[in-house]
Amino acid sequence: MQQEYLARAERIMQRIQQLAAISEDADGVTRTFGTPAFLQGRALVQGWMQAAGLPTRLDGIGNLRARLESPNPAAKTFVLASHIDTVVNAGKFDGPLGVLMGLDLLENLIAQKAELPFHIELIAFSDEEGVRFHTTYLGSKVVAGSFEPAWFARPDAAGITLAQALETMGAEATQLATDAIPAADWLGYFEMHIEQGPVLWERNVPVALVTAIAGQQRVELTFRGMAGHAGTVPMNMRQDALCAAAEFVLTAEQFAQVHGRGLVATVGKLAISHAASNVIPGEVTCSLDLRSPDEQQLAQAYDYLRSHAETVAGHRNVALNWKPVQQTAPVTCDAGLNALLAQAIADSGHETIPLVSGAGHDAVPISFVAPATMLFIRCYQGISHNPLEDVELPDLAAAVAVADRFISELIIKNEELKMG
Amino acid sequence: MQQEYLARAERIMQRIQQLAAISEDADGVTRTFGTPAFLQGRALVQGWMQAAGLPTRLDGIGNLRARLESPNPAAKTFVLASHIDTVVNAGKFDGPLGVLMGLDLLENLIAQKAELPFHIELIAFSDEEGVRFHTTYLGSKVVAGSFEPAWFARPDAAGITLAQALETMGAEATQLATDAIPAADWLGYFEMHIEQGPVLWERNVPVALVTAIAGQQRVELTFRGMAGHAGTVPMNMRQDALCAAAEFVLTAEQFAQVHGRGLVATVGKLAISHAASNVIPGEVTCSLDLRSPDEQQLAQAYDYLRSHAETVAGHRNVALNWKPVQQTAPVTCDAGLNALLAQAIADSGHETIPLVSGAGHDAVPISFVAPATMLFIRCYQGISHNPLEDVELPDLAAAVAVADRFISELIIKNEELKMG
Repeated sequence: MQQEYLARAERIMQRIQQLAAISEDADGVTRTFGTPAFLQGRALVQGWMQAAGLPTRLDGIGNLRARLESPNPAAKTFVLASHIDTVVNAGKFDGPLGVLMGLDLLENLIAQKAELPFHIELIAFSDEEGVRFHTTYLGSKVVAGSFEPAWFARPDAAGITLAQALETMGAEATQLATDAIPAADWLGYFEMHIEQGPVLWERNVPVALVTAIAGQQRVELTFRGMAGHAGTVPMNMRQDALCAAAEFVLTAEQFAQVHGRGLVATVGKLAISHAASNVIPGEVTCSLDLRSPDEQQLAQAYDYLRSHAETVAGHRNVALNWKPVQQTAPVTCDAGLNALLAQAIADSGHETIPLVSGAGHDAVPISFVAPATMLFIRCYQGISHNPLEDVELPDLAAAVAVADRFISELIIKNEELKMG
Repeated sequence: MQQEYLARAERIMQRIQQLAAISEDADGVTRTFGTPAFLQGRALVQGWMQAAGLPTRLDGIGNLRARLESPNPAAKTFVLASHIDTVVNAGKFDGPLGVLMGLDLLENLIAQKAELPFHIELIAFSDEEGVRFHTTYLGSKVVAGSFEPAWFARPDAAGITLAQALETMGAEATQLATDAIPAADWLGYFEMHIEQGPVLWERNVPVALVTAIAGQQRVELTFRGMAGHAGTVPMNMRQDALCAAAEFVLTAEQFAQVHGRGLVATVGKLAISHAASNVIPGEVTCSLDLRSPDEQQLAQAYDYLRSHAETVAGHRNVALNWKPVQQTAPVTCDAGLNALLAQAIADSGHETIPLVSGAGHDAVPISFVAPATMLFIRCYQGISHNPLEDVELPDLAAAVAVADRFISELIIKNEELKMG
C-alpha cells in the first residue's frame, strides 16, 4: 500500500516538474495569468485530464474544469481545486500541487470504477495570485459567483485590460455568470496546498488540517517629525520619525506575541525620506500587516496598534498618518468536512495538527457559498514563493493517502445519507 | 555704537546675498569646490579683500588668503577663517559668514589704523564640506600641514581627480607644503560660524562660545535574519531583522538621552532588503552616528552599543555585521582663547553659553597645530544645509560687537605680553 502511494506521489512529482518547465522566463518558474506560458501550462494539464478520460472545459475566466460524474444527475457537486498561475520567480508547488493531487485522486477513483454519490469537479483556477491585474482569486470568484464586472476594465502593467486579456486567451467572458456553480449544487470544496510556512517542518509532520484562513488588515503609516543635523540637535530637542517607527515596530511584534491564537503582525516595509547617516530622520513610512483567524481579535489588534501609534506620535511630537490599505475577513473551514479530514489524518497514523492559514487561498471566496476545507502539505523549511520551494516525496505520498481516505469517507458518508 | 554694529552687520548681509547669488544651479546655493561658480564666488570675495587694501593670494589648494601685517615682521600669525565652498542646495551662511565677518573685522582694524602685535591672516578655505571628493577640510588641512598627497588621486563623481581639478583651477598644487603655516608661527585661530543647531534659537541668545568639537564614530550595521511570509510564519519562529534593528535604534537613542553631556546618537539610514508589506524583513542595514566631546564617553557609547547590538542579534537568532566606517577624535578649544571670548560675550551683555559643536569645522584640523576657538551665531530655528538657513540682523550685529571686543582684548593682551 505504501509502495502504491509512493508510486502515485512520484507520478505527481513528474507532472509537477513537467509543468514547472513551462515558464515565461528561462530560469525559475513564472506563469502569470493569461500569458503564453500560462496557456501552454494549462494545455498540458488539460491533456492529462483528457488522457484520464475526464471531460474538460475552459470557462469564461480561463479556469480549466474537469468532471467525474455521479450516475445520479441530481447529485450535488464536490469541488477539488487549486490554481495553476504563479507569482514571478515562483516555486513549482504553490497551486499546481493541489490540481495534480486532485487529478491523481480522480484517476484512482476511475481505476477503482467508484460509483459516486456526488459529482466531482476538478478545477485548475486561472488566477489566484493576482499578480497581473492586482486582484486575487479571479478564477475562484467566478466559480463562487462573486466576480465583479467592474474588474473587466482593470489594466495590467502594459495597459491591457482584463477584458482584452480574456479575449486574447479565447475565453468567453460573456458567459461568466453561467460559470458559477449555483449555491444549491455545492456539496463542498477541498483544496490541497503546501503550507508555505515552517510549522510542519519544525514539528516533523507531513500534513495538517486547516481550520481557518486568517483575516487581514493592511495599513500604511507615515510618521512626520523634523529632519535635523545628527551632530547639532540635542537628544531632547529631536523629533525623530525613525525612533517613533521603531517603537511601533516593536509594539506590533509584542502585541502579536502576547495575544497569540494565530495573530501575526508584520512591519515589512519601512523607508526613511531623504535618509543620510548624518541626518535625523524627518519622515518615515512603514507598512503594517495584521492577520488573525478571529475577526474580533483582528479588530482589537488593529484598534490597539492604531491607538499606540497615535500615543507614540504624541509623545514624540511627530505627526501620524494612518491609512488603511486592505481588509479581508477571516474564514472558518467547515466543521463537518474538517472532522472528516481530521479523522483521515489520524487514521493514516499522523498527528492531527490544526493550522490556521495565514496566507490567502481560493478556499476564501468559495467558503462564502460552500462548505470548504483544506489539507496542508509540509514544504521544505517552510520556504515558498521562491525557486527553493520543495516537497519531499514521502510527505507527498502521505498526503495522497490522507486525500484518498478523506474522499472515501466522504463517499461513504454521502451514500449513508442517501440511504438514510 | 549699536547703530554702527547694525550698519556693519547690514554690509556683511549684503555681501552674503551677493555671494549667494553665485551658484551652480539657478535655484538655491550650490558652490562645490573647484566649480566655475566656486571660482566666481572666490573672485568676488578676493575683490572685496583687495578693495579693503589687503594683499591677497591663492594657495595651492585654492584657499583665498589675505594678510593684515604687524609692523613687527617676527610677530606670530593669528588666523581668522571659515570656508566658501558649500554643500548641494545649501544655505547662504554656512561658511561665508565667518569669512565676511573676518573681512569686516579687518576693515574695522584698518579704519582704526590699529598697530597689531601679531599678523592677522584671513582665510577663505576652498573645501570644508568635502562634497566633491568625499573628503573634509582639504583647505584647512593644507594650512595645518596635514594634507596627504594620496588625496591627489581621489576622483570626483565624473572621474576627475583632485590633482586634475586643481590644475583646472590654476592652483599650484606642487607648492602645497609651503602653504602650511609653520607651527612656530601660529598665535591662534578664530572661526565664526552659524550654530547649525537649535540651542541658541530655543534659549534666545545671539551667540555662544564653542568649548569643544565633538568626536565622531560612524558605523554601518547589518542584521541578517530570515525573510518569510508575513502570514504563515508564527511570531515565535521569526528571525525578523527589522525588529532587531528597531531595538537597536531605540537603545541608541536611550543611551544618548541617559548619558547626556553632549553625547548624541543617530540612526539616520535604515533599509530593508527586498522589502514588501507581506514579507518578514530578512535583512536590514542601518547607520549609527555617535558624537561626543568626551573621547572616553564616545568610546564607552560605542562599546556599549556594539555589545547591545550583539546581544539583540543573539536573542533574536539573527546575524550581525558591525562595520566601523569613520572615526574622528574630539577637539577641545583652547582654554586661553575661550576665556577671552567668554569675557567678550559677557562684556557685550549676553549670557555666556558654552556649546559643544556636534558638527565638524575647519577648527578641527587647525586645533592640532594651533590654539583654536569658535564663536557660534544663532541661526533661524537651527536650520542649516537648507535654503531656509538664515541669520537675523540683530544677531549678526551682536556677533560683530563680540568679535570686535575679542580681537581688541587679544591685541591688548599680546601688547602686554610683548611689553611684559
